[in-house]
Amino acid sequence: MTPRRFDDFVAGETIDLGSVKLSQDDIIAFAEDHDPQPFHTDPAAATSSIYGGLIASGWQTACLFMRLLAANLLNESLSLGSRGLDDLRWLAPVRPGDRLTASIEIKKTRVSTSKPDRGVVTWRGSMRNQDGVEVMTIDATFMIGTGRT
Amino acid sequence: MTPRRFDDFVAGETIDLGSVKLSQDDIIAFAEDHDPQPFHTDPAAATSSIYGGLIASGWQTACLFMRLLAANLLNESLSLGSRGLDDLRWLAPVRPGDRLTASIEIKKTRVSTSKPDRGVVTWRGSMRNQDGVEVMTIDATFMIGTGRT
Repeated sequence: MTPRRFDDFVAGETIDLGSVKLSQDDIIAFAEDHDPQPFHTDPAAATSSIYGGLIASGWQTACLFMRLLAANLLNESLSLGSRGLDDLRWLAPVRPGDRLTASIEIKKTRVSTSKPDRGVVTWRGSMRNQDGVEVMTIDATFMIGTGRT
Repeated sequence: MTPRRFDDFVAGETIDLGSVKLSQDDIIAFAEDHDPQPFHTDPAAATSSIYGGLIASGWQTACLFMRLLAANLLNESLSLGSRGLDDLRWLAPVRPGDRLTASIEIKKTRVSTSKPDRGVVTWRGSMRNQDGVEVMTIDATFMIGTGRT
């Protein structure tokens, strides 16, 4: 398969990235490693929190998105990494048993002025749950090789 | 111990969050789960990438920061979670053997107008490596309980 190059990314395109389901055990395991707050790790304590029950760490939602983005787009592209992101919003709680579906919309592209072998793609990502509720948005960029040197 | 309440967060304060060291195995294990791109998972492929060797996923740097923030500040505070972040920058590569030290500076605080039991704290976080190089910055908010209802 020919990998996607910078020129293959066009503003306005929406790319589906697939979906992933997460269990209570997934939520607790991630949080114990990376975000050990009681409303992410302890179902009993979470019940008396403002969330009324266990919720996933927002960083887990972001990492699930990243995995789908890497596996279903970047690893089929001339991906060169990213310098960061501009905005990340956790809009609604993610709970045990939720299935999250990811997509990105390409917003803008520009060839690097200093390095003609790559371009910068600006995009908005979205995660929705099984009820169609948007649980996360992310505005960010990645660098993609042009295939020219 | 009395937990930190909203009133205990004051603009201008810098809070040290400790440090963490990561190995090549840590980098590969995280990336295989969350960001399986060759320059994060495959030392040989990474050598011929633009990074010249294996680098940690930026999401791993963010998760290591989050863990230090949760363990050394939020779990000693009336933490109520976060709605997101405004800006995240990966400024320099993180490589096997690096030790990363985290801190946050409190930028602004305001009591919620709709919910007087909590306030929003705006902060900037920073991660530096063992050479003092800043590898990540993050501008974000968290909600903290006031202890009043």
